[in-house]
Amino acid sequence: MKAVILASGQGSRIGYKTKPLLKVAGRRIVDRTIILLKQHVEEFIFVVRKDNDELEKHLEKNWKGKINYKVVKNPVPERGNGYSFFLAKNAVGNSKFVLTMGDHVYSKEFVEKAVKLEGLIGDFKPKYVDVSEATKVKVEKKRLKDIGKNLKDFDCVDTGFFVLDNKAFEAAEKVAERKEVVELSEVMKELKPVVSEVSGEFWMDVDTLDDLKKAKKLLVKLSVKGKGDGLISRTINRKISTKISEFLVDYVTPNKATLLAFFVGILSAFLVFLNIGLAGVVYQFSSILDGIDGEIARASLRTSKFGEWIDSILDRYVDFAFLLAIAIYACREAISTKLLIITMFALIGCVMVSYSTEKFKAAYGFSAYVLKEMKYLFGKRDERIFIEMIFCLLNMPVILLLAIALIGNIRVASTIAIVYKKLKF
Amino acid sequence: MKAVILASGQGSRIGYKTKPLLKVAGRRIVDRTIILLKQHVEEFIFVVRKDNDELEKHLEKNWKGKINYKVVKNPVPERGNGYSFFLAKNAVGNSKFVLTMGDHVYSKEFVEKAVKLEGLIGDFKPKYVDVSEATKVKVEKKRLKDIGKNLKDFDCVDTGFFVLDNKAFEAAEKVAERKEVVELSEVMKELKPVVSEVSGEFWMDVDTLDDLKKAKKLLVKLSVKGKGDGLISRTINRKISTKISEFLVDYVTPNKATLLAFFVGILSAFLVFLNIGLAGVVYQFSSILDGIDGEIARASLRTSKFGEWIDSILDRYVDFAFLLAIAIYACREAISTKLLIITMFALIGCVMVSYSTEKFKAAYGFSAYVLKEMKYLFGKRDERIFIEMIFCLLNMPVILLLAIALIGNIRVASTIAIVYKKLKF
Repeated sequence: MKAVILASGQGSRIGYKTKPLLKVAGRRIVDRTIILLKQHVEEFIFVVRKDNDELEKHLEKNWKGKINYKVVKNPVPERGNGYSFFLAKNAVGNSKFVLTMGDHVYSKEFVEKAVKLEGLIGDFKPKYVDVSEATKVKVEKKRLKDIGKNLKDFDCVDTGFFVLDNKAFEAAEKVAERKEVVELSEVMKELKPVVSEVSGEFWMDVDTLDDLKKAKKLLVKLSVKGKGDGLISRTINRKISTKISEFLVDYVTPNKATLLAFFVGILSAFLVFLNIGLAGVVYQFSSILDGIDGEIARASLRTSKFGEWIDSILDRYVDFAFLLAIAIYACREAISTKLLIITMFALIGCVMVSYSTEKFKAAYGFSAYVLKEMKYLFGKRDERIFIEMIFCLLNMPVILLLAIALIGNIRVASTIAIVYKKLKF
Repeated sequence: MKAVILASGQGSRIGYKTKPLLKVAGRRIVDRTIILLKQHVEEFIFVVRKDNDELEKHLEKNWKGKINYKVVKNPVPERGNGYSFFLAKNAVGNSKFVLTMGDHVYSKEFVEKAVKLEGLIGDFKPKYVDVSEATKVKVEKKRLKDIGKNLKDFDCVDTGFFVLDNKAFEAAEKVAERKEVVELSEVMKELKPVVSEVSGEFWMDVDTLDDLKKAKKLLVKLSVKGKGDGLISRTINRKISTKISEFLVDYVTPNKATLLAFFVGILSAFLVFLNIGLAGVVYQFSSILDGIDGEIARASLRTSKFGEWIDSILDRYVDFAFLLAIAIYACREAISTKLLIITMFALIGCVMVSYSTEKFKAAYGFSAYVLKEMKYLFGKRDERIFIEMIFCLLNMPVILLLAIALIGNIRVASTIAIVYKKLKF
C-alpha cells in the first residue's frame, strides 16, 4: 500500500502557506501523518504547489533515508485538490493507496482502524469537528450517494481519509475533462466509493489558528491513559496536569518532563527540613507533574519504553527520598527503634505496591488492572501522596509514616489475595 | 495430528507391571507425555495389554474430559510392540500421528522440536542415554537403512519418538503376515522412514529402577534456568538446591517449596536476635531453598505464572525482614539518624535491584539480561545474601547495611546506565 498526501493548499485562512508544517502538540502535522502511516505503507507521495518548496526541504532534512517518498509538483494548484490528486497517478502506479489531506490531524486510534477499511472513511458520530463546517456525505447501499458542505440530509462526515485504488484516478480524469477546477468532492461524486465507518475517534482539519489550538488541547486531553489512575489522579491531578501539558507540549520532550517531576519530587524531600507543610504541597505538585511526561509523550507521538521504565524507577526513588526526609524530621524530637520499624514498613509497602503490579505484568504479560477488583483497592501513588500532603500540613510525620506503612502493605496483601483467587492456576 | 502411545509392556525388569504409571520427578511418565503432547495433538490412542486395566483407570480418573483419548486393548501382547502398534490402525484412521513409547521420558525441548519433524526421530549426539543399551539406526540418503540394538556401524540412536502416517500400518501389517512376533524395529526396517534429527536434548527410556533415579536426577538438573543466576547461585546454591529438589520433587509442590523458603527466610530474620552468625547462615540457606520451587516446578512440569509472581514478592519481604532485623539489632548499641539513613538506603537499593529488571520486562516485553553488560553487574540477590552472611558471621551489622546500601544502589544506577546506552530510543 502507498499513501498520497495532498499538500497543495495555500493556507490563506491561517496565514501560513505550508499548513502541513504547522506544529500541533509538539509535532508538525505532516510528521504526525508520516509516523502514524509508516508501518502501514511502503511509499509516500506528496503533492505540493510548484511555487512552494518548504515541505520538500522539510522531508529531505527529516525523512530522507527513513521512509520512501516522492514529491509531485502541481504547477496549477488553482485547478483544485482533485486535480492535485490526479497528478499523483503515475507515482502511485497500480498500488492500492491511502489518500489523505496534508492539513488533517488524526489520532493513532483513527489511523489504525481506517487503514484496514476501504473507500471513503466516514465519521457517523463526529465528536471533535464542527459539523457545520465539515463536508457531509449521504450514503446509499453502503456507497457514497452525494457529498458536499451544504447537504441537508446526510449520514456521515468526510474525514479526509480514503483507501482507494486506480479507479479513483479514472474518476478524477473524467471530472478534469469537463471542468477546469476539480474539487476532490467532485471526484468522489463521480467515483461513488464504498463508505466505511470510523466513528467517534479524534480527527480534525486545521484551517484556522483556533483549529490549531483546539487540536492541541484535544490531543493532550485524549492522551490521558486512565487505566492506572487512582482517585486523586482522576479528580485533581489530571485536570491540572493536562493544562500544564497543553502549555509545555510544544517545547518540552517527555524525558525532560520526567526529569522535571523527579527534581520537584526530590526538592519536596529537602523542603521537609524548611517547612513540612510546604514540602507536602510540593510533593503533591510533583505527583501532578508526574502525569505530564506520559501526556506529552502520547500527544506528541513520542512514547518510549525507556521513558516508561525510567519514570517508574525515578518515582520509587522520589517516594524513598520523601519518606526518608519525613523519618529524619520525625527523629528530631526523639529517635527510637519503633520509628525505625514504622519507617521501614512504610518504605517497603510503598515500593511493593508498584512492584507487585509490575512483576505481575512481567510474569503474566498483561496488566493486573484487567482484574476489576484491583480497581477498588486504595493506595495508589497519587492517593498515598495526597494523604502524605495532608499529614504534612497537620505536621504529623509519625502518623504519616504509620499511615503509609498500613496503606501500602494492606494494598499489597489485597493484591495477592485477588490474584490468588483469580489466577492461581 | 493424533498420538499413539504404546503401553503394552510387562515391566518385568523394573518389577512394576504398568511402567507408564511410574513417577519420575513428581509426575507419572504417561502424564508427562500427555502434558507435553496435548497442545500438539487432538487425540491420544493408548495401546494396553488386555489383562491390565491400571492405565485405563488412571486415564479415566485424571484425564477424562480434559483430553480426547481412546484405549485399544491388545489381547496378544506377546506378539511384540510392533503388533501393538498395528492394533492402533483403526483408531488412528487417516490422520498423521506421533508414535511414542509409554515408558519413555522426554523433556519439553525434545518434544517441541520433534513434533515439527517427520519419520523416526534420531538422536545423533545422545548425551543422556546409555548407547550400548540403545537401539541404533544407520541412515542412508536421509532414510533409515538399518536398525537394531547390536548395529556396529550406526549414525544415531532411536529415541522412541516417531511422526508417521498410514504407511507405517501397512508396513506393520506386512511384517505381521510373515512373523509371529513383530518388533517395532522390524516395522521400521520394512517402512524405511525418513530419519529426522533432534540431538542432545533430554530423553530416556525407563527399564530399571536405576533408570528411574537417573531420569529424576537429570530432570532436576536440567530444570536449572541459569539466566538470572548470580555468581553464588552458580557456584554454591544450585549445587545444593538441586540435591534437595531431587529429594523433594516427588513429595512437594512448587508453591509449598516457595512457602518453605519464605518461612526459613523469615525465621532467619528472627534468629538475628538469638545469634546473628547463625541467622546469617540460615538466611543463606533460605537463599539456597529459594531455587527449589523453580527447579521442582520445571522438573515436574508444574511451572505457573502465579508461582513466579508470588515467589518474587515474598523474596522482597524476606529481604525486608532481614534488613529490618539487622537494623534493630544494630540499634541495641546506639540508635542514630545515621543508622536510619543507612538502613533505608539498604532497603531501597535491595528492592530496586529487582524492581528495575522486573519493570524492564513489563515495559520492554523481554528480559533485561539479554543485554550482555547486565551479566557483569554484581549484586544479585544470591550475591547480596552471601555478603550479608559473611558480615553476620563477623558480627558487623552496620557494615552489612552499608554494604547492601552501596551494592544495591550502585547496581541500579549501573542498570540505568546500561539501558540508557543501549535502548534509549
